[in-house]
Amino acid sequence: MYSQKFLSSISIDCVIFGFHSNELKVLLLKMKESDGWMLPGGFVGLDQDLNKEASTVLEYRTGLADIFLRQFYVFGNVARAKTDHIDHLLAKGAIDPKAAKWFEQRFVSIGYYALVEYSKVKEPRLDYISEACTWMPMNELPPLLLDHGEILDKAHETLKKELYSQPIGLNLLPEEFTMTELQSLYETILQRTIDRRNFRRKMLSMKVLGDTGKRRTGLGHRSPILYTFDRAAYQTALEKGFQASAFF
Amino acid sequence: MYSQKFLSSISIDCVIFGFHSNELKVLLLKMKESDGWMLPGGFVGLDQDLNKEASTVLEYRTGLADIFLRQFYVFGNVARAKTDHIDHLLAKGAIDPKAAKWFEQRFVSIGYYALVEYSKVKEPRLDYISEACTWMPMNELPPLLLDHGEILDKAHETLKKELYSQPIGLNLLPEEFTMTELQSLYETILQRTIDRRNFRRKMLSMKVLGDTGKRRTGLGHRSPILYTFDRAAYQTALEKGFQASAFF
Repeated sequence: MYSQKFLSSISIDCVIFGFHSNELKVLLLKMKESDGWMLPGGFVGLDQDLNKEASTVLEYRTGLADIFLRQFYVFGNVARAKTDHIDHLLAKGAIDPKAAKWFEQRFVSIGYYALVEYSKVKEPRLDYISEACTWMPMNELPPLLLDHGEILDKAHETLKKELYSQPIGLNLLPEEFTMTELQSLYETILQRTIDRRNFRRKMLSMKVLGDTGKRRTGLGHRSPILYTFDRAAYQTALEKGFQASAFF
Repeated sequence: MYSQKFLSSISIDCVIFGFHSNELKVLLLKMKESDGWMLPGGFVGLDQDLNKEASTVLEYRTGLADIFLRQFYVFGNVARAKTDHIDHLLAKGAIDPKAAKWFEQRFVSIGYYALVEYSKVKEPRLDYISEACTWMPMNELPPLLLDHGEILDKAHETLKKELYSQPIGLNLLPEEFTMTELQSLYETILQRTIDRRNFRRKMLSMKVLGDTGKRRTGLGHRSPILYTFDRAAYQTALEKGFQASAFF
């Protein structure tokens, strides 16, 4: 059944990071009759574009469309195809032998990551084979099946690295935000503190922030400036990287 | 024959950039009986790791081993599988019908790029299906078959973007080099000029350069400092991105 619908040898794994109130989480699935957790993923329909299929996985699980979803690495070592857990599921009657045959093939998995505001996500959706689909805090992760722990680590490492070459924050912060709120987002992802003055200087040099001309009031005697993203500049920077002027 | 040796649905395309005397070129193949040029590529052996296969393509064509070769994007749109040129090759008798059947399937192609010093490469190697394998200047490229023009553009865009998050230059510059020589490399890849003082300041802040304590002599009354790469720092930055201190 699978082989008539999907390209063989290829799978998709999605690392969906969730951000809310300065906490970073990741969306994980637990399969029925299985001890370990997995990343949500899928296969590529014979008539479907690859990136479109990844968006479908994301939208199916979270209900969120038009989210920045990014290819970050392809996992293609022979050794990643360990079939122990398939045998286990088969023995437990959790999957049928035809499905087992499909899952036992060697997959080259294309890794995607997304970063969403998880309070906007309705209850993540289950499919017939999973018994849980939950946001788990990055600092208290359960053991993951297959090489999914490695995939998750690589996604986080990529996310941290890409902070230096492209903007982040749209859809994660309110429409108008303070420099301190933006800094908290960076600090949460990087898991370290950043010097306040350097951060401000750097952010302004990137030219993706617009000054709303407003200030947040009601915070005592200091009323911090409210910024917003310049959508066009943000989009360009996402595609081409920051203006080199921010660098050299 | 192919289907007994390789994973189906998956191909590899390599964009091999060559740098020498401030010129950027790319390695292209011309197939027999075909009008257009292509990127060198291949398939993934049933028992071979994906990244290993990409290195094999690079080494086969250039004779160079241990070169930094990087996955940069997966090309997986349905529309990229155009079979016109296969029909053409079949009609010309350049490939046999069995091979044509393999090449006509839909491939998801994993793009890799490498950057090498092309004067170190011996005559690039031909295989039975190609009539030429040549370094072509980036500013005078011939028309490319399939979506290879798009793959090449995306690789160049990625290379330019990644200059801002990771080091470059090892194996491209002599063991000891001046700041001006390093700047020329960046300018060649970015295809623009960079302010000399900003460049110097930024490069030093990245902490991948070591001062050799020597100067290049014989260049008139100024003797520029000779730098070298700190191998350990370079390797770390390649994996993790620049020290954040270079950024914030």
